[in-house]
Amino acid sequence: MNNQDVFIKMVLSTWQMQLNRFNQLLDKLTDEQLMMDTAPGRNSGLYLLGHLTAVSDSLFSQLGIGSKLYPELENIFITNPDKSGLEMPGVGELRQYWKNVNDTLWRHFEQMPPDEWFARHALVSEDDFAKEPHRNKLNMIINRTGHIGYHLGQMVYLQTAPAKTA
Amino acid sequence: MNNQDVFIKMVLSTWQMQLNRFNQLLDKLTDEQLMMDTAPGRNSGLYLLGHLTAVSDSLFSQLGIGSKLYPELENIFITNPDKSGLEMPGVGELRQYWKNVNDTLWRHFEQMPPDEWFARHALVSEDDFAKEPHRNKLNMIINRTGHIGYHLGQMVYLQTAPAKTA
Repeated sequence: MNNQDVFIKMVLSTWQMQLNRFNQLLDKLTDEQLMMDTAPGRNSGLYLLGHLTAVSDSLFSQLGIGSKLYPELENIFITNPDKSGLEMPGVGELRQYWKNVNDTLWRHFEQMPPDEWFARHALVSEDDFAKEPHRNKLNMIINRTGHIGYHLGQMVYLQTAPAKTA
Repeated sequence: MNNQDVFIKMVLSTWQMQLNRFNQLLDKLTDEQLMMDTAPGRNSGLYLLGHLTAVSDSLFSQLGIGSKLYPELENIFITNPDKSGLEMPGVGELRQYWKNVNDTLWRHFEQMPPDEWFARHALVSEDDFAKEPHRNKLNMIINRTGHIGYHLGQMVYLQTAPAKTA
């Protein structure tokens, strides 16, 4: 394994680990739990699941590997906040969208030529990339992994609260 | 900048970005807010700040760059859960500990020889590292960055909840 392969492995294995944790939680949560707010007055589990699905769905174009599977999600789950009054897909649909987006992304990730991970992503200009070569496609995966973890920390609150210790 | 330098830059800039976000929140929160629970029956902000400080303080030995600044935190904030009845340091002290740990870590990070980042960290055996060379010191920073983000997602709930939209 050369250095470059090790870097890619580091980032993609962290991405997978974070997704596994997220999916383990998702499997444990009932649809009813997922529809509740993560804390009083905060985003619901459903909104966060839609938000993460929409953000991951944006990766196709940002990484130059395709286009969105569910373009209608952006307006509901990125442009607008929770409780906007916009109609959301059902829980079952969103669970399926999340899985489809992630499965499809992963098939692309596995086929990505190693050098391509270190190329510019679509959100950075050529000029900026020349000055800041760390803003590459692999870096985008690091950031998105962190974004999933941030909301995972909130979604664990959908689980039944532990009994209060004395 | 060679690939290795770019990769180190990717990981350390993500670490710094996450810390900046966390510290911006910390600066906004009053001591009173920080002492509240992040959600009903969940960890307090104070506990999470102590927990993150203790986990980052463990990095010195795990990365082979020193030893803990505040070894007494481990029992209170890692071994035991919140509301264990153990006496915690005050809010002001913990804010200072967090800053000291991070400032000291950063001084070490800046001086770390690039190759050293790709060496084995203390939590993986030599045998396992031979098979999984991605489990290096830099990978530990990726994981710890994610850990901070996870709890940051919870600590933002300490801010006053937004007014409920109609």
